[in-house]
Amino acid sequence: MSQSRWTGVVTCRTLDLRARFGAAFTELAPEITLLTPDEVTDPAAVDFVLSWVPPKDAFSPYPNLRGIFSIAAGMDAILACPSLPKNVPVIRVEDPDQAAQMAGFAAFHIVWHHRQMGLHLENQAKGVWKRPASGRSPARVRVGVMGFGLMGRAVALGARALGYPVATLSRNLPPKPEAGMAHFTDAHRAAFLARTDILINVLPMTPATKGLFDIDLFAALPVGAAFIHLGRGAQLDESALLSALETGQISGASLDVFAPEPLVAEHPFWSHPKVFVTPHTASEAEPPAVVANVVKHLSAIG
Amino acid sequence: MSQSRWTGVVTCRTLDLRARFGAAFTELAPEITLLTPDEVTDPAAVDFVLSWVPPKDAFSPYPNLRGIFSIAAGMDAILACPSLPKNVPVIRVEDPDQAAQMAGFAAFHIVWHHRQMGLHLENQAKGVWKRPASGRSPARVRVGVMGFGLMGRAVALGARALGYPVATLSRNLPPKPEAGMAHFTDAHRAAFLARTDILINVLPMTPATKGLFDIDLFAALPVGAAFIHLGRGAQLDESALLSALETGQISGASLDVFAPEPLVAEHPFWSHPKVFVTPHTASEAEPPAVVANVVKHLSAIG
Ligand SMILES: NC(=O)c1ccc[n+]([C@@H]2O[C@H](COP(=O)([O-])OP(=O)(O)OC[C@H]3O[C@@H](n4cnc5c(N)ncnc54)[C@H](OP(=O)(O)O)[C@@H]3O)[C@@H](O)[C@H]2O)c1
Ligand SMILES: NC(=O)c1ccc[n+]([C@@H]2O[C@H](COP(=O)([O-])OP(=O)(O)OC[C@H]3O[C@@H](n4cnc5c(N)ncnc54)[C@H](OP(=O)(O)O)[C@@H]3O)[C@@H](O)[C@H]2O)c1
Repeated sequence: MSQSRWTGVVTCRTLDLRARFGAAFTELAPEITLLTPDEVTDPAAVDFVLSWVPPKDAFSPYPNLRGIFSIAAGMDAILACPSLPKNVPVIRVEDPDQAAQMAGFAAFHIVWHHRQMGLHLENQAKGVWKRPASGRSPARVRVGVMGFGLMGRAVALGARALGYPVATLSRNLPPKPEAGMAHFTDAHRAAFLARTDILINVLPMTPATKGLFDIDLFAALPVGAAFIHLGRGAQLDESALLSALETGQISGASLDVFAPEPLVAEHPFWSHPKVFVTPHTASEAEPPAVVANVVKHLSAIG
Repeated sequence: MSQSRWTGVVTCRTLDLRARFGAAFTELAPEITLLTPDEVTDPAAVDFVLSWVPPKDAFSPYPNLRGIFSIAAGMDAILACPSLPKNVPVIRVEDPDQAAQMAGFAAFHIVWHHRQMGLHLENQAKGVWKRPASGRSPARVRVGVMGFGLMGRAVALGARALGYPVATLSRNLPPKPEAGMAHFTDAHRAAFLARTDILINVLPMTPATKGLFDIDLFAALPVGAAFIHLGRGAQLDESALLSALETGQISGASLDVFAPEPLVAEHPFWSHPKVFVTPHTASEAEPPAVVANVVKHLSAIG
């Protein structure tokens, strides 16, 4: 009956993926039919799943999958899903723009903390004209980027382009070091933290990074450092951050990721005067890139 | 009596320059005595003036000046001062960091408008988790920089580094065009404006730029463009901006400069929901750079 060449199913506990990508598929790949699980009449005809945070049994119904697409860089939820089939490739959708989105988002928060833009907004609300005496120069504000993959590299390059001294942290030293950047491995984390005034987390979620941002880590930063959290919610010990904000050890935080998401109502972060909350929005593949990735992969396997 | 080698006077209608630079002179150049006008007992012994917005008669009392230092890039108020002596050099203090400060400040406001960060703050205040469906990519947000001097070049390079397509406007084409940037001259201003989603003004104050940002200029931008105003207050027709914000022709504005400054109490900009007011703070020479410039110049003339 259907003219469609391929059939896909969207399934995600946190996002309405059809609302987000349906129109782009219709427009750019009319040969693909994109269904929600309850619309599927023939599970054996489903070629692929598009997901991000799948429900437990997301993949069980479909015996003939040829690809599972993650719409985002963080594939931890898909990889941890109990119904994930062993013989089906999991493909991370790649959108070169995602790194650029992340770089701009991080740059915004670096300047937010360095230039005390929140204080300017407060002063504006009170009609107060108040100029800081000095401290405008980026040259004395040391940015540290944890994670130096697709995202971390773009964040570090963006900060460097704006004049900030940048150091990075990764497991291994990058094969191609960047000029004017200090690269640390995890073995020298203490030294990396000690020289970091603004810390940015773009680490992936792994057993090693779970709960990594704890009271010891914050204590290893200089007093008054700022924290920009763009990796995964479960990497942060929330009460450690709250007490570091309380003592002034951390002067301010920008949080884009939480555990669980959405951030629960009445959570202290929502109304904390030193916390900037955003709804996991730093970076995301744009719909045309998602469609192009799906088409490319399905075409390749015929 | 004094051990000082040189004597300077600070005079400025808008800033307390001694509070700002006094300590740096004491620490870094103890051979210089920095006075306020009422502390001067021997006007003939004053070697230099440090200023920004001088009072009308700022320079009249001192017959033996060897230099007049502008603490900032915009020297328009000094050059327009009726008591400015003809035979004394006016020196703009140069701090290479000033351009980097401006680049970061502009980048912040570009992302503020592009990523609707104000809306995220409003949502946070209400405890609302709301992700934009798309539009995160910088590749489709066209930045236009008016002025391509020390400041404009840094702003344009910063925006380009974050993935924004950038065009610039100046009187003459730059001798050294930047890769991947479209350079327009003033003769093609309409074309420049028509392709600009986020407009940044870093033009100097001149007869040609006074009142330049008027209803016609805003109308030449695409509907919903954003305006970032970092040049000089008098370049803006305030009522034109207010009505362009009212109609939605301009979706939002970041204003760092005003006429007069400080921005008057009760001004509609203070409480305008689409306007981000900052107190002329985008960029300023740091105290050590000011001291170094003064010492360098005075030493050169013996
Ligand atoms: N907030 C958002 O909107 C958003 C959007 C996209 C991505 N993200 C998050 O950002 C993460 C990173 O994305 P990506 O594309 O940059 O990943 P990636 O390309 O895989 O890079 C991961 C980087 O982290 C380093 N790393 C991993 N485990 C480490 C550890 N235990 N200690 C130190 N370094 C470690 C890796 O070092 P080696 O190379 O040495 O192994 C690598 O440099 C994603 O997993 C996701 O959680 C968030
Ligand atoms: N908000 C702040 O904190 C802050 C701080 C610093 C500076 N500023 C402002 O920024 C201004 C620019 O500083 P700058 O150091 O970049 O100055 P600059 O190096 O002298 O550069 C001025 C640029 O503007 C262009 N220009 C001048 N008149 C023009 C016109 N009528 N039409 C088109 N282009 C024109 C020049 O073009 P040509 O080269 O072709 O002549 C040049 O590219 C300062 O004058 C000051 O008002 C503000």
